Amino acid sequence: MSVISKYRIQIENALKTLNEEKKPTGLYTPVDYILSLGGKRLRPAFCLAGCALFNEQMVNHCLPAALSMEVFHNFTLLHDDIMDQSPIRRNQPTVHKKWNDNTAILSGDAMVILAYQLLAQSPSEKLPQILEVFNQTALEVCEGQQYDMDFETRNDVKEEEYLEMIRLKTAVLLGGSLKIGAIIGGAPANDAQLLYDFGVNIGLSFQLQDDWLDVFGDEAEFGKPIGGDILNNKKTYLLIKALNNLPGQQKSELENWCAQKKFDKQEKISSVRNLYKVANVSEQTKKIMNYYFERSIESLNKINGSDLIKEELIQQAHQMITRSR
Amino acid sequence: MSVISKYRIQIENALKTLNEEKKPTGLYTPVDYILSLGGKRLRPAFCLAGCALFNEQMVNHCLPAALSMEVFHNFTLLHDDIMDQSPIRRNQPTVHKKWNDNTAILSGDAMVILAYQLLAQSPSEKLPQILEVFNQTALEVCEGQQYDMDFETRNDVKEEEYLEMIRLKTAVLLGGSLKIGAIIGGAPANDAQLLYDFGVNIGLSFQLQDDWLDVFGDEAEFGKPIGGDILNNKKTYLLIKALNNLPGQQKSELENWCAQKKFDKQEKISSVRNLYKVANVSEQTKKIMNYYFERSIESLNKINGSDLIKEELIQQAHQMITRSR
Repeated sequence: MSVISKYRIQIENALKTLNEEKKPTGLYTPVDYILSLGGKRLRPAFCLAGCALFNEQMVNHCLPAALSMEVFHNFTLLHDDIMDQSPIRRNQPTVHKKWNDNTAILSGDAMVILAYQLLAQSPSEKLPQILEVFNQTALEVCEGQQYDMDFETRNDVKEEEYLEMIRLKTAVLLGGSLKIGAIIGGAPANDAQLLYDFGVNIGLSFQLQDDWLDVFGDEAEFGKPIGGDILNNKKTYLLIKALNNLPGQQKSELENWCAQKKFDKQEKISSVRNLYKVANVSEQTKKIMNYYFERSIESLNKINGSDLIKEELIQQAHQMITRSR
Repeated sequence: MSVISKYRIQIENALKTLNEEKKPTGLYTPVDYILSLGGKRLRPAFCLAGCALFNEQMVNHCLPAALSMEVFHNFTLLHDDIMDQSPIRRNQPTVHKKWNDNTAILSGDAMVILAYQLLAQSPSEKLPQILEVFNQTALEVCEGQQYDMDFETRNDVKEEEYLEMIRLKTAVLLGGSLKIGAIIGGAPANDAQLLYDFGVNIGLSFQLQDDWLDVFGDEAEFGKPIGGDILNNKKTYLLIKALNNLPGQQKSELENWCAQKKFDKQEKISSVRNLYKVANVSEQTKKIMNYYFERSIESLNKINGSDLIKEELIQQAHQMITRSR
């Protein structure tokens, strides 16, 4: 079993007893519920691996920080689900559906504070540095969510703006988790930054792949219905690229599909997918995915740290971007 | 001009430039908006006074922590206003009315993180201790809000439960603000705790007075319409006490008013107020208010610190509980 797999089990067990006996139960039960829905526990695993890369002895001292990353990540899911009015998360009802909006707001708020409470259990001499990384990262995640919401009502989103949005909304928390682990492991500043860059770049590659899979993926393997982004006119990398690439008439056709209020779902999905094919956006998306992937591996290779953990992180990165292609 | 008044001006000025040039504006404009609505700035003023009580030289280093208390307090107002669907805050539209629920959720989330970012600017050797106080306090505020929501659907709330709820929801943040100031000012642990107790007890007294004013206050001086709690069947100290005190028939009468769906507002207010008079709850509320007020002054008097600041804190406490009686 890989080291990272062992970390995952440790994390899973620790999450189970996180809020034992805390009251009022109306506040903490929804927190335990969303944390119990599973997921890959990527951020806390990265946090522990980031620590082990530099000092395996410190991994136990890094566990609270790792849990903090997972609690914060799940807080963002909880509040995003209210904002997006999503009924389902990991095949289960979302918190605001199972309870109500007010419960989801307040339990989410408590999760942010719980994340800080866990983080504060980190070695105290490292705390100012850890907090600096975490505060910036957490605020950037909110900024990314705001940009994402802003983009819904804009038709002129540029490629760079989109990439900056997914960097903030998705990638920095992977980078931040690794960097906080590295700080606790006593990494030199330069190595901690390289590890952060590894996380951000693999995060960008991962999110671009998510956009690609929604259009060209295999439904069964992707784990959610294909075409959801197309139906919602979500400003993905593919849509932005296609609008930039397509000649006048076909661009209008794509814009018409986005403007249409009534349509046959399957017809819209296949028509937009065809326009994407004409615009050659599948290859272009894969190209930029690979670009970020290679940059992430480059950064990792420059780091002086445990070869075993480096190897596992590379393997992990490969797994992240080879879902169902 | 009193020292605390000077602190208030400092706080007011610092709040104005807190989020200058930050982007996206969709995230930060609502934050600046709610912070600009005014208020007594009690928590940050208490934080600075708590510091000055032990070391006036440290007050400048305490300013970020003081601002953090105000940002956190306003975050709770922002999210509470969504949950209560309140349209007006300090005579202005609430954030979720001026923008929308999603904006109010996300900008509130950003405020929690901004509060931590400010707190983290405190002297680093004190940071673990400060975080411990703040994390516990912040979580307790959420717990208090949850109890308050739980009480809405309960008819058997006990006096002790109510007092615990207002301690969590309102009082601990006053205590925590003072204690964090005291820690930054280098207070001995015992004095920091006494100051915390001063804050919590004055907070309890203040909230009980708020309940009293809603029934027996003068509308013009109270600054909001009288009887709102009665119309909403809010489980206040007065309602709980009256239900405990009144004999069978009059208790039923009060319960009937609470159960009534259709009623004349003024008739309900004056009938319930009369039942409160029969139950003698005005005197009982004043009695417990005074009890907490006296305990708060007792705690303060035990502290070894600047006599000038102690005097001002006592004056402040008096002002807090002598609004329009």
